[in-house]
Amino acid sequence: MSTNAGPARDFVGYGRRPPKVVWPDGALVAVNLVMCYEEGSEYSLLEGDGRQDGWGEYPMELPVSQGRDLGTETHFEYGSRVGVWRLARLYDSLGVPVTVSATAVALDRNPEVAAWMREQGHDLLGHGYRWLEQWLMSRDEERRWIQDAIDTFERVYGERPLGWNSRTQPGVNTRELLVDAGFLYDSDSANDDIPYFVDVNRKQLLVVPYSKTFNDSRYLIAPGYSSPRDFAEHCQLGLDYLLDEAQDTGVGRMMTVAVHARWTGQPNRAAGLREFIEHGLSRPGVRFMRRLDIARWWLDHHGEF
Amino acid sequence: MSTNAGPARDFVGYGRRPPKVVWPDGALVAVNLVMCYEEGSEYSLLEGDGRQDGWGEYPMELPVSQGRDLGTETHFEYGSRVGVWRLARLYDSLGVPVTVSATAVALDRNPEVAAWMREQGHDLLGHGYRWLEQWLMSRDEERRWIQDAIDTFERVYGERPLGWNSRTQPGVNTRELLVDAGFLYDSDSANDDIPYFVDVNRKQLLVVPYSKTFNDSRYLIAPGYSSPRDFAEHCQLGLDYLLDEAQDTGVGRMMTVAVHARWTGQPNRAAGLREFIEHGLSRPGVRFMRRLDIARWWLDHHGEF
Amino acid sequence: MSTNAGPARDFVGYGRRPPKVVWPDGALVAVNLVMCYEEGSEYSLLEGDGRQDGWGEYPMELPVSQGRDLGTETHFEYGSRVGVWRLARLYDSLGVPVTVSATAVALDRNPEVAAWMREQGHDLLGHGYRWLEQWLMSRDEERRWIQDAIDTFERVYGERPLGWNSRTQPGVNTRELLVDAGFLYDSDSANDDIPYFVDVNRKQLLVVPYSKTFNDSRYLIAPGYSSPRDFAEHCQLGLDYLLDEAQDTGVGRMMTVAVHARWTGQPNRAAGLREFIEHGLSRPGVRFMRRLDIARWWLDHHGEF
Amino acid sequence: MSTNAGPARDFVGYGRRPPKVVWPDGALVAVNLVMCYEEGSEYSLLEGDGRQDGWGEYPMELPVSQGRDLGTETHFEYGSRVGVWRLARLYDSLGVPVTVSATAVALDRNPEVAAWMREQGHDLLGHGYRWLEQWLMSRDEERRWIQDAIDTFERVYGERPLGWNSRTQPGVNTRELLVDAGFLYDSDSANDDIPYFVDVNRKQLLVVPYSKTFNDSRYLIAPGYSSPRDFAEHCQLGLDYLLDEAQDTGVGRMMTVAVHARWTGQPNRAAGLREFIEHGLSRPGVRFMRRLDIARWWLDHHGEF
Repeated sequence: MSTNAGPARDFVGYGRRPPKVVWPDGALVAVNLVMCYEEGSEYSLLEGDGRQDGWGEYPMELPVSQGRDLGTETHFEYGSRVGVWRLARLYDSLGVPVTVSATAVALDRNPEVAAWMREQGHDLLGHGYRWLEQWLMSRDEERRWIQDAIDTFERVYGERPLGWNSRTQPGVNTRELLVDAGFLYDSDSANDDIPYFVDVNRKQLLVVPYSKTFNDSRYLIAPGYSSPRDFAEHCQLGLDYLLDEAQDTGVGRMMTVAVHARWTGQPNRAAGLREFIEHGLSRPGVRFMRRLDIARWWLDHHGEF
Repeated sequence: MSTNAGPARDFVGYGRRPPKVVWPDGALVAVNLVMCYEEGSEYSLLEGDGRQDGWGEYPMELPVSQGRDLGTETHFEYGSRVGVWRLARLYDSLGVPVTVSATAVALDRNPEVAAWMREQGHDLLGHGYRWLEQWLMSRDEERRWIQDAIDTFERVYGERPLGWNSRTQPGVNTRELLVDAGFLYDSDSANDDIPYFVDVNRKQLLVVPYSKTFNDSRYLIAPGYSSPRDFAEHCQLGLDYLLDEAQDTGVGRMMTVAVHARWTGQPNRAAGLREFIEHGLSRPGVRFMRRLDIARWWLDHHGEF
Repeated sequence: MSTNAGPARDFVGYGRRPPKVVWPDGALVAVNLVMCYEEGSEYSLLEGDGRQDGWGEYPMELPVSQGRDLGTETHFEYGSRVGVWRLARLYDSLGVPVTVSATAVALDRNPEVAAWMREQGHDLLGHGYRWLEQWLMSRDEERRWIQDAIDTFERVYGERPLGWNSRTQPGVNTRELLVDAGFLYDSDSANDDIPYFVDVNRKQLLVVPYSKTFNDSRYLIAPGYSSPRDFAEHCQLGLDYLLDEAQDTGVGRMMTVAVHARWTGQPNRAAGLREFIEHGLSRPGVRFMRRLDIARWWLDHHGEF
Repeated sequence: MSTNAGPARDFVGYGRRPPKVVWPDGALVAVNLVMCYEEGSEYSLLEGDGRQDGWGEYPMELPVSQGRDLGTETHFEYGSRVGVWRLARLYDSLGVPVTVSATAVALDRNPEVAAWMREQGHDLLGHGYRWLEQWLMSRDEERRWIQDAIDTFERVYGERPLGWNSRTQPGVNTRELLVDAGFLYDSDSANDDIPYFVDVNRKQLLVVPYSKTFNDSRYLIAPGYSSPRDFAEHCQLGLDYLLDEAQDTGVGRMMTVAVHARWTGQPNRAAGLREFIEHGLSRPGVRFMRRLDIARWWLDHHGEF
């Protein structure tokens, strides 16, 4: 495969003076809370993957030659047994919607999570069939894999996802495959604060940008958070800055805050997340929105951007 | 060895609504303090291991070709000469029980520690014969090794351990060997907040889950604590969150806080631990319990879970 | 190439009692704010470089064999699409000048940035033709490369740079090539607080020292900042200490604070930078100066040092 | 060389109840401030070492194949040109003695530092002839190397060192060589809080333990300090804990706080050190002492331990 296949790059975007953005009820900043739910779909010797994940509680991957890493396996299990429910209670008790970025297999292994999403009206962001490195697949392999995800989500959750976020990064074919598979929006890019459109084979695809900055992965990637208060501080400083900016410039902003069930599902880290959400709820001009609602709002109000 | 040998995985556990948990005197959260005591049993050229540990004060392992790492050796010695006594004084002066997660050889090399445990009634968690990577052993080798540990503990401490926690992670045979060797509970899993039972060759084994989150290993694993106050903050945020949760849901919780003699035995870090324990003592609903007492309480009151 | 080619080392410098330094209006500390702008000029498979950069949001470089790293690519794009304008608004709204350490290609790919620099009177520090490892080039290759940078800057920005800062570190020929190419000053050294002169082939070259300590690279290099407040704290502690020192010793000081569009251009980190700048503006004795103005002032007032 | 050559290990030390320690004027904790001064003696291609150090401002070592790392070279130079004088002014203005842990070559390259030490009465701790990995030398090589250090110190500083601290860690022969060379004490061990004696070929050698915990190396080793306030906090928590402990147990303590000219010589980090020293000066029971004075006091008052 040619190394220059894939999407063209755009270093300019909206440029110095982005167009005016409106949000429902005149909100200044739309905050999308994402809960990543991957547990049970990670690389695993039990699945015959020939490798096993190390992103449980520490960023260390055990060599295959040493056999199963039962310690890390249990860190993943913490996410689906305990963490997801702690976060579910948190979101629901504060009355904020959450976008669940789930792999199909993770939901399939714990259908009660899918049931809760439907019960509470939380939306789904497709995060893979399993939690694998999608950018390493061939085009055909990736196409089938996305379709497997869609089919499984329909079976387990009752609906297909309309947005997509790949593990770590997408491949050069991903965007085209998403358009082919009828996705409404792509969330694999982290190059902007607000949504925008890209041309994919002469079709317009909406990109709702993701964030690795407001992301609990920094509990595992150094330099990272020394304490959950650091996570909260990152998010609060960011939200307040965006609010000031939206006020000053008249340009509405968007903010994505993503956490993982097995990491922020630990009680100390859930406390950090709670601190941020409570802060957001206390600030006028902030509106917590599902990702799907942001996408639809943008299509309805900013289709011309 | 087949890569899929070993325990089956469970991604559901207690699920969305765990059963009601009761603790002595109606406590909401049972806190188990663990002090890891491994000094003198780590990988060492002097012992003919063909490698030497690097987890003294920095996470760096010196290549064998460079000979003994006398610097790291002294960091380990700090734990047994100084750190263990500083922590002993701290626990005892605050009147909290501690579970000593010791290797047999470490106690054998400093029997005064075993004497103190008996004198003060602190309990023992088996942490290996030596501080080695148990998951790399053959089944027979591991069986003999666990037995060596039991024998040595009986000689030095006067009792065998009834619970077990492997260095880093267990192997695929560990649980079966623990059942064969008559252990009351296993603490190698970190997949839950509260104890539960697993089936091991048609016998029920109690699992009292461990924690790598509330663990001073993050003084050496990046991203980690920038200051001992970060350790205290992690623990306090976690405990307070669990208390809130237990109050709200009526489901009692458990919390394990594990530290190492050579790391938290340093005075600055002991200050962080003291801060947490004093915080816990000040919060109604918290009960500090030995791990063995938690196991026995669970067997007596929650045998049906 | 001989390994001892290149500039001689000087471990003494101004020594124990540096000469009296004066700044405009009797300021005690001259603070130079640098914004690094490299986006679109980093190592990229699309450019045929045979490798791709990993310094987007995480310090991880994807192997070429895995193809384009579209995730990291978008982190870089964030800098030029969003980050640079956020920082531009910040500097301008606070009325402080900024030195843009840009690569020629980055400006060429987003000429609106060059236009803003001219409009607001911010100065340029040459940071390479592209953001490449200049120290690995042959002398001739490096000479042409510097000339390409000059030519491109003249075309896009309307002026050539008069100072230079290489990516990571310079090569053994860099200083001679800078003198040959008519540069006024070199900023590749971090060995002093204040400017000084070096002999390069019997010509005097002014060195305006750079800083990797007051630098947002520590958001990616561990150990680093746990929160943007740590960045602000580093800078504020440093500035206040220099102010005290300048007061006590009568020797004026200089401080460089460098940030990157794609890192500190994120809103949480922009908040940390704003905190520092506002702190500096509130302290008597601090003067924010462009790097070029510092160089010219030094040549005019301290040519004898 | 046999891998079990070298000093025997002692995991017991003073044990549970250390003997009563007295310090001058009844102080509870003797604090020894160490300033490491190595600049100009590190691994360098210019010196023909075949490698170059990477411990300037970042912990990264440039491969020899890439030639001189002029960036890191200037970070080292910062230490001798600027950092050492900033720290010198700090110690002297606060009136506290400092132990300079210097290599002979570093002093030789900046004799003004040696002159300042004599002028202010600060003592010397031998830290190598150059800043090299002493544990990799043969016994004869190491013996000559220590003698070279002694000779150079006598020439530059006017006196030989009476104590020794090796870079990173000592070798298996170091202690015997120190005894042969007439050293009064060894500071290569970090296994205790207070001095003790060891038997070396039937001679008693005093060990004055060192600390890698209260050490600014954690500005470069992850997990480390996020801000200089973390350094100060580590030290203050440690000192206060030792004071409490000395009060409670009647056993005096000792604390070593070591910093490097090129790291803590930066103004932000000097602020963190100043914060700690001012804290220590404000606490009754603390006495700042030179390392040599601690060694002599111990020999005079605790020769029997």
